[in-house]
Amino acid sequence: MDPRIEEHAEVLVDWSARVEEGDDVVLSVGPDAHELAVAVAEKVGERGANLVTTYASSELGRAYALAHEDDFDENPEYELALYENADVVLSIGGGRNTSEGSDIPAETRRAQSKARQGIREARMDTDWVSTVHPTRSLAQQANMSFEEYREFAYDAILRDWEELADQMANMKEILDAGSEVRLVKEDTDLTMSIENRTAVNSAASVAYDSHNLPSGEVFTAPHATEGEVFFDVPMTIRGERVQDVHLTFEDGEVVDYSAAQNESVVGEILDTDEGARRLGELGIGMNRGIDQFTDSILFDEKMGDTVHLAVGRAYDSNYPEGYEDEANESAVHVDMITDVSEDSFMEVDGEVVQRNGTFRWEDGFDG
Amino acid sequence: MDPRIEEHAEVLVDWSARVEEGDDVVLSVGPDAHELAVAVAEKVGERGANLVTTYASSELGRAYALAHEDDFDENPEYELALYENADVVLSIGGGRNTSEGSDIPAETRRAQSKARQGIREARMDTDWVSTVHPTRSLAQQANMSFEEYREFAYDAILRDWEELADQMANMKEILDAGSEVRLVKEDTDLTMSIENRTAVNSAASVAYDSHNLPSGEVFTAPHATEGEVFFDVPMTIRGERVQDVHLTFEDGEVVDYSAAQNESVVGEILDTDEGARRLGELGIGMNRGIDQFTDSILFDEKMGDTVHLAVGRAYDSNYPEGYEDEANESAVHVDMITDVSEDSFMEVDGEVVQRNGTFRWEDGFDG
Repeated sequence: MDPRIEEHAEVLVDWSARVEEGDDVVLSVGPDAHELAVAVAEKVGERGANLVTTYASSELGRAYALAHEDDFDENPEYELALYENADVVLSIGGGRNTSEGSDIPAETRRAQSKARQGIREARMDTDWVSTVHPTRSLAQQANMSFEEYREFAYDAILRDWEELADQMANMKEILDAGSEVRLVKEDTDLTMSIENRTAVNSAASVAYDSHNLPSGEVFTAPHATEGEVFFDVPMTIRGERVQDVHLTFEDGEVVDYSAAQNESVVGEILDTDEGARRLGELGIGMNRGIDQFTDSILFDEKMGDTVHLAVGRAYDSNYPEGYEDEANESAVHVDMITDVSEDSFMEVDGEVVQRNGTFRWEDGFDG
Repeated sequence: MDPRIEEHAEVLVDWSARVEEGDDVVLSVGPDAHELAVAVAEKVGERGANLVTTYASSELGRAYALAHEDDFDENPEYELALYENADVVLSIGGGRNTSEGSDIPAETRRAQSKARQGIREARMDTDWVSTVHPTRSLAQQANMSFEEYREFAYDAILRDWEELADQMANMKEILDAGSEVRLVKEDTDLTMSIENRTAVNSAASVAYDSHNLPSGEVFTAPHATEGEVFFDVPMTIRGERVQDVHLTFEDGEVVDYSAAQNESVVGEILDTDEGARRLGELGIGMNRGIDQFTDSILFDEKMGDTVHLAVGRAYDSNYPEGYEDEANESAVHVDMITDVSEDSFMEVDGEVVQRNGTFRWEDGFDG
């Protein structure tokens, strides 16, 4: 077995999910994620934890969803009981076709998603972690050869996470102490309040309230957003390629938008509900193991020298107890990314924190 | 998709498991059984049932078992809750190496099996059905090309089950009315009591108390066995090839045994416990879609023109309520098969029921 697969399993089980003796672990395996699943099963066994393995095939899920009429039973008890009694859920993505779900009607998808809300919540109440096993289909989506993609994925996943967590702690400290963030670059001058918010040091571990592997971002939930922002990283939203999105905010809300490609997709998202016009997330990508965009949000938004903003739903983890503010609510959470490696700076309370991709505490910082 | 796969799925879901709207279905999928699993998911969706899919990989199971120390937690609650709340469990075997579990120490296997007894029982309390998707590894075990093996497997699985159930009902009727069975062929003259027993018409459907697809046998639980029997069909028991077993019974117990190959394996089995020296099953193979031995008990024992006997554990389904006899108990249940297509006959209460493979109610029967 490729030693990187064993390392990946070890990071997932020990660093990310902190699996311990007696834990009830659900392992969800994509059809092409078999090898990583075997390595993970071994680690789970070594830790003396219990194991139930589920099969996450989008082809199977599509066949089921298309054949079923739209009145799905709500939160079937047997599945709910599995997750309500589980301590840890490890999901290893890795299928054979990232477009497999493309012809499931939106109505079916919504009906199924609604009927399964309780199950989703029960999963989220565990120490869950999602990762991907590098597959040929993900390589294709990234426009890379399989070997090149594997190098890319393991560079992102097999970090010194403890060291990166320490680096990110600097950023969290600054954000937690600060009141206002300002981001300046080409066609961008945006200010956001971060008053009464807690930043999350997303270090790919449940110990840091972080549930993705790889991770490597510090994020918070901004509000009272003012100004304009330009997202120069192309992305796929709802199956469409969207480029060069530009948003203008007043009083915390998007009042104007444009895009060079598929502008209507941006409009649809913003029109979803009231919360979709407000920001739900400001994230600072700090994983320098990720050095190119691969059209996968799990990787793209963590890339070093990038900043992303999401319109829509905010995470509860950014709202400290004792304050009255409630997390921005919306049916959507859509991330958009901007490159800050050149000709850019970010300030917190008027002091420059990052310029041209280099942070204040790093060598070569030019405040 | 091969239309036989869709037919297989339909037989499994409708004939075998009788899946209905609202049923909570667990589908267990082997690593190479993906295609059948997709077809089954579609049928389960069409019926309006719920679906949880588990991944049954012997490679993963081996990695977990070898890494775990032998003190397995007893019946972990989350897994127990899944099966206790399920209505149907469909298992689709189909891995990549039928020998994958061969280096798991017997002690580990026993410890794990013992710790999981409650989960096994909960699964058996559902309408469970086991089948296999024809894979390259099963073809290899059968010493066949993949294409040849697929033909073989679908001939066995895609029967007119209703018609076969009617044929088998004749045999069940004779056994239920009878008191004694006598089997005569080369080196074989065996009598068994079937007094106070109910025969099972194993027609590959939970509606017939039958949980394997393919099936096609009528079986009962004989006792007071006397005489000798010769098993001329080679088989693999505990990983060893065993040939030409000959058993001698007195007062229901094996008093002498021999085998042309691996006689010691037979001895080990008979020495397991007290029940291992008594018969647990007499089965009459009636699936003429199975016309050759493939070293897989799921298929071999159902083959038309064969009879099999098992030493060890009997099935409760052969013991009618209201009688005091309890099912023969043992840690083992080992089937051995004899060919009755030529130079043989079987009598019930002195009347010939089958001669040279032809039953009394069939054309060409020569009583």
